[in-house]
Amino acid sequence: MAKPLNIGLIGYGFMGRTHSNAYNRLTNFFDSPYQPVLKVICGLEKDVAQAFANRWGYEEAETDWHKVVERPDIDLVDICVPNNMHAEIAIAAAKAGKAILCEKPLALNSAQAEEMVLAIEAAKVPNMVSFNYRRIPAVTLAKQLIDEGRLGKIFHYRSQFLQDWTISADVPQGGMATWRLDVKAAGSGVTGDLLAHCIDTALWLNGSIADVSAMTETFIKQRKHAETGKVEEVGIDDACAFMCHFANGSLGLFESTRYARGHKALYTLEINGEHASIRWDLHDLHRLEYFDHRDDSLVRGWRSVHVTDGDMPYMKKWWVPGLQIGYEHSFVHQLADFLEAMDQGKPCSPTFREALETQKICDAVLDSARSRQWTSVG
Amino acid sequence: MAKPLNIGLIGYGFMGRTHSNAYNRLTNFFDSPYQPVLKVICGLEKDVAQAFANRWGYEEAETDWHKVVERPDIDLVDICVPNNMHAEIAIAAAKAGKAILCEKPLALNSAQAEEMVLAIEAAKVPNMVSFNYRRIPAVTLAKQLIDEGRLGKIFHYRSQFLQDWTISADVPQGGMATWRLDVKAAGSGVTGDLLAHCIDTALWLNGSIADVSAMTETFIKQRKHAETGKVEEVGIDDACAFMCHFANGSLGLFESTRYARGHKALYTLEINGEHASIRWDLHDLHRLEYFDHRDDSLVRGWRSVHVTDGDMPYMKKWWVPGLQIGYEHSFVHQLADFLEAMDQGKPCSPTFREALETQKICDAVLDSARSRQWTSVG
Amino acid sequence: MAKPLNIGLIGYGFMGRTHSNAYNRLTNFFDSPYQPVLKVICGLEKDVAQAFANRWGYEEAETDWHKVVERPDIDLVDICVPNNMHAEIAIAAAKAGKAILCEKPLALNSAQAEEMVLAIEAAKVPNMVSFNYRRIPAVTLAKQLIDEGRLGKIFHYRSQFLQDWTISADVPQGGMATWRLDVKAAGSGVTGDLLAHCIDTALWLNGSIADVSAMTETFIKQRKHAETGKVEEVGIDDACAFMCHFANGSLGLFESTRYARGHKALYTLEINGEHASIRWDLHDLHRLEYFDHRDDSLVRGWRSVHVTDGDMPYMKKWWVPGLQIGYEHSFVHQLADFLEAMDQGKPCSPTFREALETQKICDAVLDSARSRQWTSVG
Amino acid sequence: MAKPLNIGLIGYGFMGRTHSNAYNRLTNFFDSPYQPVLKVICGLEKDVAQAFANRWGYEEAETDWHKVVERPDIDLVDICVPNNMHAEIAIAAAKAGKAILCEKPLALNSAQAEEMVLAIEAAKVPNMVSFNYRRIPAVTLAKQLIDEGRLGKIFHYRSQFLQDWTISADVPQGGMATWRLDVKAAGSGVTGDLLAHCIDTALWLNGSIADVSAMTETFIKQRKHAETGKVEEVGIDDACAFMCHFANGSLGLFESTRYARGHKALYTLEINGEHASIRWDLHDLHRLEYFDHRDDSLVRGWRSVHVTDGDMPYMKKWWVPGLQIGYEHSFVHQLADFLEAMDQGKPCSPTFREALETQKICDAVLDSARSRQWTSVG
Repeated sequence: MAKPLNIGLIGYGFMGRTHSNAYNRLTNFFDSPYQPVLKVICGLEKDVAQAFANRWGYEEAETDWHKVVERPDIDLVDICVPNNMHAEIAIAAAKAGKAILCEKPLALNSAQAEEMVLAIEAAKVPNMVSFNYRRIPAVTLAKQLIDEGRLGKIFHYRSQFLQDWTISADVPQGGMATWRLDVKAAGSGVTGDLLAHCIDTALWLNGSIADVSAMTETFIKQRKHAETGKVEEVGIDDACAFMCHFANGSLGLFESTRYARGHKALYTLEINGEHASIRWDLHDLHRLEYFDHRDDSLVRGWRSVHVTDGDMPYMKKWWVPGLQIGYEHSFVHQLADFLEAMDQGKPCSPTFREALETQKICDAVLDSARSRQWTSVG
Repeated sequence: MAKPLNIGLIGYGFMGRTHSNAYNRLTNFFDSPYQPVLKVICGLEKDVAQAFANRWGYEEAETDWHKVVERPDIDLVDICVPNNMHAEIAIAAAKAGKAILCEKPLALNSAQAEEMVLAIEAAKVPNMVSFNYRRIPAVTLAKQLIDEGRLGKIFHYRSQFLQDWTISADVPQGGMATWRLDVKAAGSGVTGDLLAHCIDTALWLNGSIADVSAMTETFIKQRKHAETGKVEEVGIDDACAFMCHFANGSLGLFESTRYARGHKALYTLEINGEHASIRWDLHDLHRLEYFDHRDDSLVRGWRSVHVTDGDMPYMKKWWVPGLQIGYEHSFVHQLADFLEAMDQGKPCSPTFREALETQKICDAVLDSARSRQWTSVG
Repeated sequence: MAKPLNIGLIGYGFMGRTHSNAYNRLTNFFDSPYQPVLKVICGLEKDVAQAFANRWGYEEAETDWHKVVERPDIDLVDICVPNNMHAEIAIAAAKAGKAILCEKPLALNSAQAEEMVLAIEAAKVPNMVSFNYRRIPAVTLAKQLIDEGRLGKIFHYRSQFLQDWTISADVPQGGMATWRLDVKAAGSGVTGDLLAHCIDTALWLNGSIADVSAMTETFIKQRKHAETGKVEEVGIDDACAFMCHFANGSLGLFESTRYARGHKALYTLEINGEHASIRWDLHDLHRLEYFDHRDDSLVRGWRSVHVTDGDMPYMKKWWVPGLQIGYEHSFVHQLADFLEAMDQGKPCSPTFREALETQKICDAVLDSARSRQWTSVG
Repeated sequence: MAKPLNIGLIGYGFMGRTHSNAYNRLTNFFDSPYQPVLKVICGLEKDVAQAFANRWGYEEAETDWHKVVERPDIDLVDICVPNNMHAEIAIAAAKAGKAILCEKPLALNSAQAEEMVLAIEAAKVPNMVSFNYRRIPAVTLAKQLIDEGRLGKIFHYRSQFLQDWTISADVPQGGMATWRLDVKAAGSGVTGDLLAHCIDTALWLNGSIADVSAMTETFIKQRKHAETGKVEEVGIDDACAFMCHFANGSLGLFESTRYARGHKALYTLEINGEHASIRWDLHDLHRLEYFDHRDDSLVRGWRSVHVTDGDMPYMKKWWVPGLQIGYEHSFVHQLADFLEAMDQGKPCSPTFREALETQKICDAVLDSARSRQWTSVG
C-alpha cells in the first residue's frame, strides 16, 4: 500500500507543470511506495497560484515559499523557480528536514552549489536534481549498453543542445517568460540552461572531465527588460562551445546555442567506442541509434532502435511495442526512481553532490571562455 | 466551472487504460466544460477490476456491465471490451440515454453496426467511436492542410498498418491478451483491427470509397486457443490488402498485416495531390512530411515538420516547441473534443454513423477477398 | 589480354547514353575478357547520330539499323530504341548471329516477346535484357542475403515506382522526349516502363507470380501529340496497382504512377521474412535497410547499411568505403556480367526468356485491369 | 572543336584513379574547350605504372617525375603523390610553364605552401588545388543559396570529417596504402587529410577565419612501419577538434577523427543563418537539407532536397531527375571548371593562393593544439 507523501511545489512555470504532471501520473503507471499528495503550490501571484492549484489538484495556493518550507506536514519540497532562488530555498528546506527535488542547474555557480551540498548533507535529507533527460528511455538504455561494456574503450563524446528561439532582437530579457535571458535570474545563458543537461548526461555516461577550453558569444548585446521596460546589456551567453578531456582518455566536444535556425530543442549526443557507437537526439527521443562493428560486415549499419518494447527501460509501464511516449514521461520516471530510492534509504542520482560536479564544469567553461585558456575542472 | 460528468468504463484491458488516462489528464491540460468523475470500472474479474479502480481512481469496481448501464448516475458509458460485445452494450446504453464512447471497430459487421446506429439515433445520445489516430496532431494537421486546398486535386491515397507480433506459431488465439486472433471475439483480423483505422482516416481526409478489390491471407491456419487449450482453425485474416476507387477520382491502396518483420505498429499514410503531397507514420508520430511543388525548385524537397509548435493542432496545450508528445495523448484530444461537442449539443466526428461507413468498407473488403471480385461499398 | 568486341548501338536517347557510358568505363574498372570497340551508333537523324558518335567515341554514325545488323564486323547489337522497334531489330540481329543487349521492356506484349525468344534461342546467341536495377549493389546484396536464407520464409513483397513528371496536362505524347506517353511506341504506360523493373526484381528475389488483380488509371485522357501537333486520346496507363500471389505463398503488392507529387524516380522494394526484412529505394540507392529479429532485443532496429565496402557486390572495383556510386554504375555492372558470361559461354540473367516472364506478368496485369478479374499469369 | 590538352599525371594511387577517370569522362558529358590527351602516367614502380597506363589509356608509363615535368609536349602536370612531394614537383612544373592541378593539402606546412605560391604566381601558370568536395552538386548549391543571401546573417558554422579505419592497432604507418599515417609523408594526420577539406569549404562558404583554439590526440602511440617493419612513434594526429571565430562574426566548430566507429567518410557541414540553415553530409552526398524560417509555420521543416534536377549545379550534364551521381563526379566537375577557366585565362578557385590560406589555418590549428593557446591565423 502506497504511503502518502506530502508535496510542496514552489514555482508554477513550465517546470512546475512538468513536475505536477509527474505527481499526478505516477501511481497510474508505477507501483510506487509513495502516493504523492499535492498539499501546496507556491508562486508569486496569488491568483495564478490558485488557478494552478485548481488545474493540478493542489489543496492550497501560497505566495511565500518560507511558509511552504516551514510547514511540518510537507515531506518533499520541490523547487521549480528561477536559478537565483534555488540556494536559499534548498538550504532552508534542508534545515527543515525536507526531502528536496530541485530543478537544474543546481545554482548560479559552484560556490553557491557547494553551500547547498553542505547543507543537504548535514541534514541528511533525500535529494535529487532534475536532470530529467537521463531518464528518457533511450538515454537510460544508452547507459545500460555502456555499462555492459558493449562500446569498449571510448574515443569520442560529442553533444549539442541547439535552439533558435532568441534570434529576434525583439525577444526581451527578464520576467516570467524570458528570465532565462536575464543573467541575474539565470546566472548564465545556454551554459547553465542547456549545456548543464549535456554535461550531466556526459558525466553519467562517460565519467569525469579533467579540463576544458571554451568560447562563448552574445550575439545580441542589448535587449529590453520585460519588467523594467529599459534596454539593458545582455549578460548571458547566447552560445557556448567547449572542447574537453575526459578522465578515461576520450575527447569531448560540446556546443549549445539559441541561434541555430531550424532546431527547436535539439539535444544530441554521440559516443564512439572501439567496438560500437551510440547516437541520440531529443527531436526523436524514442529512438536510439546504435552501430556495432562486430556485426557481420554485409549487414553492418547504424540501427535505429525504436525504444518502445517492454524490455527497455521504463517501457513496460506504458503501452505496447511501437507506441511512443513523449517528453514529459521523463519526469515521471525521475519521480518514480527518486521515491523508490527514498523508500529504500538510498541516494538517487543525480544527487546535489553530483550536480555540483556539473556546476563546476559550467564554471570552468565560463572561466575558460573569459580567460581564453584551458581550464582545469574543480 | 467544469461540470461533473460521471463515467462508467466497461473493459479494463489496453484500451481501458488509454481511456482512463485520458479522463485523468483531461482538465490538467484542457479547459473542458466537463470534469470527468470516475464512478465505476467494469470487467469480468472482480479483483482485476478492483485493482484497476485503485490504480486509476474509479470509485467502484463492477463485473456486470448491465449494472453500469442501468445506473442513473452514469452520464457516459465507455465501451472498451472486445468487438463482439460492442453492439449489445451500446444499444442498451443508448436506450438508457447515456452518452457513449465506443472503441473501434464499431461492430463485428455492418449489419450489427447498422442496428447500433439506429438505436443511437433513436435515443439521440451523444456518441463517438474511438478512432484515435485522427487526433494525433500531425494527422489533424494533415486534415487542415487538405481542407485549405494545399494539395489540389488528389491522385493517390495509400496507407499501411504493419505489425509483426503474430509471426510465431506459438501465439495462441482467444483469451484476454490475444482475443484479437479469435474470430468470434474480433469478427475479423487485421481488417477490423488495423485497416479500420486506415479506412477511418482515409474517409476523413479523402472522402468516400466506391469499390474495392481485396485479398486476404491466413498464414498460420491453426492455433491453440488460450482458454480452451485446444488447437483450432484460425478464422481471422492475418493479412489483407485492397485497391479501391475514391469518389473524388483518386486511387487507393491499403495493406495491413501482422507478419511484417521489423514493424511494431507502423501505421503509414501518404496522399499525392496535384500541388503537394503528405506522408505520416505512427513510429514517428510527431512528424509530418510535406512536399510542395510550388516551392522554388532549388530548395524543393520533402519537409520534415516537427509537429510541436503552439500553432499546430492541440499542441498549445502541452509543452514547448521541440518537445514531443506520445501515443496516449491522442485519446486526451479525442475526449476533449467529444466533451466540447457534447456541451454544445453538436455531433463529434467520427460518430457511430460515420463509423458505420468504415464498417461497410471492411465488409466489402472481406467480401471481395472471398469472392475474388471487385465489390461495391454499401 | 582483353579481346576486342565490336559494338553496334541502335538508339541515341537516354538509354543510348547510359549504355555508351558503360562501354567507355568498363575496362577502367573491371578486368573484362572483352574490350568494347565502339564501331557504330545508329539513330534516325544523321547529324544527331554524328554528334553522339563524336561525344562517345563511335567510329561511325548510321541512320538505318538494318545496316548495323548486317555488318559482319559487329559482334554485339545493343537495342536502345522505343519498345515498338525491339522485336524487329532483335529478331534480325539474332538471325545475323549477333549477341544482343536489349533495353526493357522486352516487347510491346508477350506474344511479340515470345517470337523474340524463339528467334534468339534458335540462333543460340548471347542475349540479355537491360533490367539494370538488379545490379545496383544494394539490390544485388539483397539477393545475396535472401539466397543465404537470412530472411526465412517470405510473407510479403511490396514494391513501388513513383514519379511525378506527367502531372501537367501540357506534357505532350509521342516524339523523342515523350514517346513513353504514346501507346503506339511504348505499348503501355507505367506498366511496361516502370512496373516491369519492379516485376523483374521481384521474380529474381522472390520467385514466380501465380495470379494478379490490377487496376489502372489514365488521369489525363487527351494530350497533344509532339509530332502531329494534334490532341489525341491517351492510350497508356498513367498509374497501375496490382496485388498478387507468389508461388512461395507470399503476398505481393505493386504500384506505379507518374502522378505522385514529390517523387522523381522512387523505386522502392520491401521484403518481409520470418526472421528478417529488407528495404531499398532508388532515391538513396547506396543504402540497404535490414532488420533482423534475431538481434539482441535491446539493440534491435532497422540497420541502414551504407553499401560502399569492398566486400559488397561490385564495390571493390570502385573507390573506398563511404564513397557512394551513382545510377549509371548499374549499367557498367550489367555489361561486365554479360561479357563475362559470354566469354564463358553461359547465359546471363535476365535473358530474353526471363524477360518474357516479366512481359507475361505485365500482360496479365493489363488484362486484369481491363476485365476487373483476377488473372492467372501465362 | 575541343583543343587537345596533354596530360602528365604523377601518382597512380587512389587519387591517380579519380583524376584519370575525370580525364576519361570529361568530354562525354561536358562541352569542354579542351580534350585531355593522356600522354604519361608517372609512378615509382614501372610495372604498376604500365598497368595503370593500360587501364586508363595513358600513352606512356614513367618512373621519374622530372622527365614528365621536362617534357615540352606536356600541357598540364597533375600531382597525385603524397603531400611531402607536392612542393618540389609543383615548383619545377611552374618553372617549366605547365598548368598544374595539385592534390590537397597543398603542402606539408604553410611555409612550404608559400614557396609554391610564389613560384606559381611568378610563372603565371594556370593552377588549382583539388578540394573536390566543393563541386559535389549539393555543396555547390549551398554556395549558391548563401550567395543569394537566403540565410541572412550567419551565426554558426560546424563541420566534421569522421572515419573509423585506423582503430585497430594493427594498421601500419607508411607505405603505399597507409602513407597517411606517416608524418614524414603526410605532414599531419586528420588535420591535413580531412580537416583541410572542411576548412576549404568553410572559407568558400563563410569567409575567412581569424583565430582558432584546437586540441589533437594520438590514440595509438606506436605503429609498425609498412616499409621498414619497425615499430615507430606515430607522429600524426589521430583526431583534431577546433573552435574558431570567422571574420563575419560567426562561430565555427570543427572536428575530425579516424576513431569514430560507424562512420566511414562522414564529412558533414551545417550553417545556421538568421533566416535559414543548411546541412549536408558525404554519406548521402546527393541530398541537401534546407530549413527556411520564412516558410508558413504550419509546414515549416527541414527540407530534404534531392539534388538531381537539371537546374541544379552540374546536374544537367548527367541523367534525369531522381537519378543520383556519386563521389567521383566531383572530380569531373572540377576538371571541367578548371579547363573552362584556363581557356578564358581566368583563375579557377581554389587556386594555390587560396589553398595557402587553408594551409595557414591547418598550421594555426596544429600550433594551437601544441601550445594550448588561442592562435591567430597567418
